[in-house]
Amino acid sequence: MARIVMKFGGTSVADLDRIRNVARHVRREVAAGHEVAVIVSAMAGTTNQLVDWTRSISPLHDAREYDAVVSAGEQVTAGLLAIALQDIGVAARSWLGWQVPVKTDDAHGAARITGIDAEILRDRLGQGQVAVLAGFQGLGPDNRITTLGRGGSDTSAVAVAAALQAERCDIYTDVDGIYTTDPRIVPEARRLTRISFEEMLEMASLGAKVMQVRSVELAMIHGVRVFVRSSFAEPDDAQTGDGDLPPGTLICDEDEIVEKQIVTGIAYSKDEAKITLRRVPDKPGIAASVFGPLADSQINVDVIVQNVSADARHTDMTFTVPRADFEKAMEVIRDASEVIGYEELSGSADVVKVSVIGIGMRSHAGVAAQMFKALASKGINIQAITTSEIKISILIEAAYTELAVRTLHSLYELDRP
Amino acid sequence: MARIVMKFGGTSVADLDRIRNVARHVRREVAAGHEVAVIVSAMAGTTNQLVDWTRSISPLHDAREYDAVVSAGEQVTAGLLAIALQDIGVAARSWLGWQVPVKTDDAHGAARITGIDAEILRDRLGQGQVAVLAGFQGLGPDNRITTLGRGGSDTSAVAVAAALQAERCDIYTDVDGIYTTDPRIVPEARRLTRISFEEMLEMASLGAKVMQVRSVELAMIHGVRVFVRSSFAEPDDAQTGDGDLPPGTLICDEDEIVEKQIVTGIAYSKDEAKITLRRVPDKPGIAASVFGPLADSQINVDVIVQNVSADARHTDMTFTVPRADFEKAMEVIRDASEVIGYEELSGSADVVKVSVIGIGMRSHAGVAAQMFKALASKGINIQAITTSEIKISILIEAAYTELAVRTLHSLYELDRP
Repeated sequence: MARIVMKFGGTSVADLDRIRNVARHVRREVAAGHEVAVIVSAMAGTTNQLVDWTRSISPLHDAREYDAVVSAGEQVTAGLLAIALQDIGVAARSWLGWQVPVKTDDAHGAARITGIDAEILRDRLGQGQVAVLAGFQGLGPDNRITTLGRGGSDTSAVAVAAALQAERCDIYTDVDGIYTTDPRIVPEARRLTRISFEEMLEMASLGAKVMQVRSVELAMIHGVRVFVRSSFAEPDDAQTGDGDLPPGTLICDEDEIVEKQIVTGIAYSKDEAKITLRRVPDKPGIAASVFGPLADSQINVDVIVQNVSADARHTDMTFTVPRADFEKAMEVIRDASEVIGYEELSGSADVVKVSVIGIGMRSHAGVAAQMFKALASKGINIQAITTSEIKISILIEAAYTELAVRTLHSLYELDRP
Repeated sequence: MARIVMKFGGTSVADLDRIRNVARHVRREVAAGHEVAVIVSAMAGTTNQLVDWTRSISPLHDAREYDAVVSAGEQVTAGLLAIALQDIGVAARSWLGWQVPVKTDDAHGAARITGIDAEILRDRLGQGQVAVLAGFQGLGPDNRITTLGRGGSDTSAVAVAAALQAERCDIYTDVDGIYTTDPRIVPEARRLTRISFEEMLEMASLGAKVMQVRSVELAMIHGVRVFVRSSFAEPDDAQTGDGDLPPGTLICDEDEIVEKQIVTGIAYSKDEAKITLRRVPDKPGIAASVFGPLADSQINVDVIVQNVSADARHTDMTFTVPRADFEKAMEVIRDASEVIGYEELSGSADVVKVSVIGIGMRSHAGVAAQMFKALASKGINIQAITTSEIKISILIEAAYTELAVRTLHSLYELDRP
C-alpha cells in the first residue's frame, strides 16, 4: 500500500470515453490498495477556447478575470471524473483549488504555489476516498482563483505529491516514457527505465516535451519521484506493486539510479538562431552592452561563446536566440552597434543545437573528445560548443541534425539495453 | 443615484458580441450615477452541454459533482463580462458564489439561498466598482458549490437585490415586458407598465415564461421591485433616471399601482389534461384515496373541482394534471379503482386552462358573471371553474383557446391604453 498521485493531461481527458478510461486507470490503483489523488487538466481544446475568448474580449484583459474564466475548464473535468469514478464503484470527490486550498502568490496567470493545506486531503484519502483535484489552479492571497500558467497541471501534481508525501507522482501522457533520443530520428531509441532529475531538466529544456521544466525543478527540490507513463495503455493491465513498475520512465534522485550511464540521452533543438559579432573591443562591460539591449527587448539568449579574436584587443562573440526572435535580435544589435563597436555582424537561423546528456559525465573524462571525433569523421562542422557538468551542447548546420543525432546515439551505445 | 441590480440570461450573453452589448447596458447605468451589481447566466447552450455530460457519464450522478461541473458556465460569463466592462472603461470585477459568499442550504442541484454576506459588495459598489456575479450558484454548508436549479439566476438576482437593498432589480430578457396576454394570439395585447407581485405569480404559474415563480415569490417576500425589460434594445438608449423608467414592466407591490385595473391579464396553459371520476362515494377520506396515489407517483395535480352527484351519497370529481403525466395518472387511478370505488373514469388531454387575473377583482363583483356570459355567447363550453381572490380559471376544449382569449381580452378592454 502506498499513497500515489496520478496526473492526466488534456488529451487523456479529451472526451467522455477518455474520462471513463481514466477512471479505470484510477480504479486499478485503488484496487491495488493505494491511496490515490488525481490531478486533471481541462478537456483538450477547452483551455484554448477560454483563452481565445478572454483575448477576443480584450487583448489587455485583467489577469484575475482571465484566471476566473480559464480555471473553469479543469473544474468541469474534475467533477466529471469524480462522477465517472463513483459510477464504477470508486468513492471519489472533486476538489477545486480554493477548496483544498492550494495557496499561491498573487501572480495571476502565472502564479506559484506557496503552500498546500493537505490535512483534509490526507484524511479523506485515509478513508478510502479518491481526491480528484482540478489542476492548474489555486487560491491567491486576494481570495481569488489563480492559475499557474501553461503546463501548470504538472506543477499541481508534483506540489500535491510533495504535500501528501506521496510515494510517486504518475504523469500519464501520450508517450510511454522518456527516450534516449527522438524515436522519429533514431528508431532504435530506447525508453529509459530511470533518469535523474538533473538529466531530465537538461532533456526538458532542450526540447523533450514531456514535462515542463518548472515541474521537474519542483520535483527535484521536494524529492518527488515522477513516473512518466502512457494514458493510452489498457487501464486494467499494468498493475503496479511497490517498486515494481510498469512500462514508463521514473524521474528520480540519482542515488536511486544504480547503474549510471555515462550518457543517458541525446537531445536536439531546432528552435535556435545564431548571431556572431566579430572584432568586438575586449574591454570590461562589453558583454553588458550586447546582452542588455536584448534583455530589454525580452529576447532570451541561450548559448554564449566568447573567443579571443585574432588580435588581443578584440574578441569574437557568438550566441543563440530563439528562432522566432532572430530578426528582432539582429535589429537590436544593429541599433546598438555604436555602443558595442563590433566590426562585423553575421547571423543564421540555419542552425540546430544537439546535446549529449548524462550524469555519468561528471566522473568520466573524454566524453567530449569522443563526440567531436565522431562528428568530424562524418564531416559535421561544429560552430559553437558549450558545456555544463552533465551536458555538452554543440551548434551545427541544421541539415546535419539527423546524422549527428544518429552518430552520437550509436557512439554512446544508447541503442543497447 | 440609486443602487440597482441587472440580470442577463443565457441568450443575452450567448456570444462575445452580446456580452459586449451587455457591457454597454451596464455602462449606461453607471454613467447615470448608479451603483450596479450584475448577475449573469451561462452562455446559451453551455449549461445544457454541461448537464448532458454529467448525465452521460452517469445517470445517477452525485449532485455535488453536478454542481461543480454545471456552475462553471456562469463562472466563465462573469469573468468575460468583467473584462468587457474594463475594456470600455468601467471598473468591474467578477464574483463567484463562494467568494461573496452566497450561502445556501445543502440541497445540491436545487439549493435555496439562506443568506448573502453583502457587506463587501456594498463596499466595492460604493467605490464605484461594478460587481459581476455568477448567477445560479452559491456555497453550501459543506464548503462546496451549490446550484439553485433551473431559472436560478433570476433567484440570484432577486436575492442579491434584497441583500443590497437595491432600488430595483432589472431582468433583461428577450421580451420587453409582461403583456396583457400572448401577443401571438391577440396582436392588440398591450405591455403592462406595472403589475403586482400577486398578479405576476398567477401569470407566471399559468405559463407566462418570463420569470420563475420562485423568483417572483422571493421578490414579493423581500419587497424587491423587479423591472422586466429587453436586452436587445439599443444599450445607449433608454437612459433611466429615478422613477422614470424605459419600456418594460415593473413588478411591484400593489400599493405602488395607482390605477388598479379590475383585470390585468389573460393567461392560458396548454399543458393540461383533465380527469373526471363519476359517482365516487361521498365519504370522508375519499379525496385522499384519489390524490394520495397521484402524489406518490410524483404527479402534480392543479385544478380540483368537486360537485355533488345526482344522488346525495355520491360525488363527481374533476382535476387536471400536466399533459405529459396524463397516461400515467389514468393508470394510477385505474390501479386504485377498488379503493376509490368510482363508477366511471374519463379523461381528456384536449383541454386548455384560461385564466383571468387582476387584483381589482377583490373589490369588484361580477367579473366572473361577465366572463361566463361572454364565453357562452361565443358558444364556448366551460368544463370546470376554479377561482382565487385575484383569478378565475376555466377549463375549455383546446380548439377554443384563441377564441376564448381574444373574447376575454376585449371584454375587459385590455387592448385600450
